[in-house]
Amino acid sequence: MGEFELIRRYFAAAASAQPAAGVALGIGDDCALLQVSAGEQLAVSTDTLVAGVHFPESCDPRLLGQRALAVAASDLAAMGAAPLAFTLALTLPTAEPAWLQGFAEGLDQMARQCGLALVGGDTTRGPLSLTLTVFGRLPAGQALTRGGAQVGDLLCVGGSLGDGAGALPLVLGQQTASAELAAALLARYWAPQPQFVLGQVLRGRATAALDISDGLLADCGHIAQASGVAVLVERERLPLSPALLALYGRDAALAQALSGGDDYRLVCCLPPAQLAEVQAAWPELTVIGRIAAGHGVQLLDANGQPLAMPVAGYQHFQP
Amino acid sequence: MGEFELIRRYFAAAASAQPAAGVALGIGDDCALLQVSAGEQLAVSTDTLVAGVHFPESCDPRLLGQRALAVAASDLAAMGAAPLAFTLALTLPTAEPAWLQGFAEGLDQMARQCGLALVGGDTTRGPLSLTLTVFGRLPAGQALTRGGAQVGDLLCVGGSLGDGAGALPLVLGQQTASAELAAALLARYWAPQPQFVLGQVLRGRATAALDISDGLLADCGHIAQASGVAVLVERERLPLSPALLALYGRDAALAQALSGGDDYRLVCCLPPAQLAEVQAAWPELTVIGRIAAGHGVQLLDANGQPLAMPVAGYQHFQP
Repeated sequence: MGEFELIRRYFAAAASAQPAAGVALGIGDDCALLQVSAGEQLAVSTDTLVAGVHFPESCDPRLLGQRALAVAASDLAAMGAAPLAFTLALTLPTAEPAWLQGFAEGLDQMARQCGLALVGGDTTRGPLSLTLTVFGRLPAGQALTRGGAQVGDLLCVGGSLGDGAGALPLVLGQQTASAELAAALLARYWAPQPQFVLGQVLRGRATAALDISDGLLADCGHIAQASGVAVLVERERLPLSPALLALYGRDAALAQALSGGDDYRLVCCLPPAQLAEVQAAWPELTVIGRIAAGHGVQLLDANGQPLAMPVAGYQHFQP
Repeated sequence: MGEFELIRRYFAAAASAQPAAGVALGIGDDCALLQVSAGEQLAVSTDTLVAGVHFPESCDPRLLGQRALAVAASDLAAMGAAPLAFTLALTLPTAEPAWLQGFAEGLDQMARQCGLALVGGDTTRGPLSLTLTVFGRLPAGQALTRGGAQVGDLLCVGGSLGDGAGALPLVLGQQTASAELAAALLARYWAPQPQFVLGQVLRGRATAALDISDGLLADCGHIAQASGVAVLVERERLPLSPALLALYGRDAALAQALSGGDDYRLVCCLPPAQLAEVQAAWPELTVIGRIAAGHGVQLLDANGQPLAMPVAGYQHFQP
């Protein structure tokens, strides 16, 4: 038995601690078997993270495990799906026990938090990278796509924006901060919380939704294009965290909120009549604009006047 | 739009040519949506191929695309699943149009042949590697696992063995052969045919099944362990292709059939009463041994006498 077979067993042991509804067969055979109920669909999303491109090769493996699963799972939340399971394809140059233990613990922690069972995967030797494929369940026909936004809808976001981008200089060692501020921002970077509860509340209420991974303006552009509408973003309404404001000041914080990636908050389009009910279930939901006839994304000032758009270009990790 | 966004669109165009039953939503949103009927389960398997570990970095991208999907899909066939869909996570150092076109064409060819629709994935920059996650459909409770073999079952294989291992020296340029022999073996290496038809015929008939990826003896060991039985393999019954015999002679061909990896034939355990019906549907099915009380794998000679086991160690591609 090679060391990579041992790794498989290591993760299999972690997986067997999580018997999950909807998982008919987990790790260990040619395939895993997932069960969805009659009238349900299975939501599927795949994300790859490459060392040196999406995360620093030397980063804490526990944090990497948490973040990798959270980032992938956020796509399920954005579709309105309930969490079900995931597979992990892990490519490693060498099998170091301490690294693997940390990684598996971080992964397991996020898996429990999200309610996702590890059901399979592959471990191979090669340059460090991870591919996670995540699975969720949805009542057929109730998925939140990007394509249903209607003129008159409110544009809403599920929480503060810009924290992921604000954390990046700390991750890269380009910025220092007090322990308290650093902790607040780094938690948002390394362990973003997929907004599963919000996503499921939005089912049958929101006309469109996605999660912010490329930056608010870029992702609103996806809604505008898929729905054939204009998305108006009111800059002064963007929710900014106290930590982000304290570390960078309002102007820089706003820029990070508009163009920074890695937020993993849900953005949705809501008919005004739905707002109160959704906010009752998810108080952090904040109106940040509206949907109008037209196309593209337009940033507005406090008086509703158009503002020049910031230069595009979100910042994921780059070495 | 970056070049990697363009790649996504390139594959999305290929995917949209394959509208498939069971795919409610394909590429382009946060998730794909898969539909299975009431009473069905979804089979899921993930495989990673890394350049320099699983294939030569300089290999023909069209062949790589074919092989990557075939290898992954074989796990579905081994479970008895009907093909449904797959996702592709493609990591590339640079986006070269000629490489991408060849790869996408090879992938598309195997996808059509198998009946698998590309429903999503991710493209990232980094060292060349591929992770494919494949999806199939199964009537609930009818999956062919490794764990059900019964004493008295026949051990059967779905076609000739050893061709993948026999092709490897040709792939690596360590062996020459006539054009005809090379073509026969290389086809089995670069475009193995997932045995979907056989797998579905085996549902409700075989007690256990898997596909040979690690080598016949190693994979029979998985059945022995999961089922708590002994697997007896009769060496003289192993089906060997004319090309393999012509290039290597009988002794070396037998060694490749026993320990070589990359065959992707199904091995199954069949109650004797089921044999005729399965062979009627799949004439290549060959009895190569039987299941007995005990544990582990034992190789037998033509007289049923135990033979020394070949040294373990299958040969996947290694640079």
